[in-house]
Amino acid sequence: MTDDLLEEKLPRIPEGYVQMNWTQGFGRQIGPLFERIGEGGAYTRAFLVSEHHTNGMKNCHGGMLMSFADMALGHAVSLNAHRFWVTVRLLTDFISAAEIGDFVEGTGEVVGEEDDLFTVRGRIWTGERTIMSATGVFKALGARPAKPHWIQVAEG
Amino acid sequence: MTDDLLEEKLPRIPEGYVQMNWTQGFGRQIGPLFERIGEGGAYTRAFLVSEHHTNGMKNCHGGMLMSFADMALGHAVSLNAHRFWVTVRLLTDFISAAEIGDFVEGTGEVVGEEDDLFTVRGRIWTGERTIMSATGVFKALGARPAKPHWIQVAEG
Repeated sequence: MTDDLLEEKLPRIPEGYVQMNWTQGFGRQIGPLFERIGEGGAYTRAFLVSEHHTNGMKNCHGGMLMSFADMALGHAVSLNAHRFWVTVRLLTDFISAAEIGDFVEGTGEVVGEEDDLFTVRGRIWTGERTIMSATGVFKALGARPAKPHWIQVAEG
Repeated sequence: MTDDLLEEKLPRIPEGYVQMNWTQGFGRQIGPLFERIGEGGAYTRAFLVSEHHTNGMKNCHGGMLMSFADMALGHAVSLNAHRFWVTVRLLTDFISAAEIGDFVEGTGEVVGEEDDLFTVRGRIWTGERTIMSATGVFKALGARPAKPHWIQVAEG
């Protein structure tokens, strides 16, 4: 019976998502974050809006959404170019609010590449609703292992 | 002797700064944050880069810098228009890295106002070094108390 009650309290994470193993720094502080890898370079990252993500209106704080956008879009450089990266510029447009309990997902697509600068266009949503659109410019650094690993060394 | 040792471990916060009393949500999660109010609407906000702000290179994570920019620039709407606000758009340019132990400061200036939309230009720095430049568009909501108070209700 106790187990049943505990299970009811677990957040419902959609199938295919695994929790990212960020054990230190800012990634741990704002987590947990989740990732689902699809075919052909497709991926989504996600988080469940919890109390420690909120602003005073109990919506997701804009800072959290921007932090998540940085991680969701930049990952396109990791996956498609197998490079570490740093953020050069990020433009975020806030379309609608994410509320506590919303499962927020995001992904990015490389739309431009010149020398070491990658331009990534991305979208953040929950259910059918767009939360944010974003465009980022990321500078690629050294090569990273092609196989995804969960301790992200240089992101952000 | 013990007191001496403990004091050495305290972060050195410049004179005039007070710690913001964010006791819940994202503001607490990424804190502590500090604020210094000057004359004629001038202000700076600040934070000391700590382990829970870092990326894998032990620099300040880009998400933290963007979150701080949101709070530092948006505050110009609170102080100059005495309104609550939400972020509509934020553009952030990453100029240089902030390292662990850096005391990072930022401020914003209202450079445009049309109906309820305020455009704010801002800068984030540490010491003599610029970390980020940013431009934000914020939508003003209802009136807020003219006297600053530390529980920020609607920011972000």
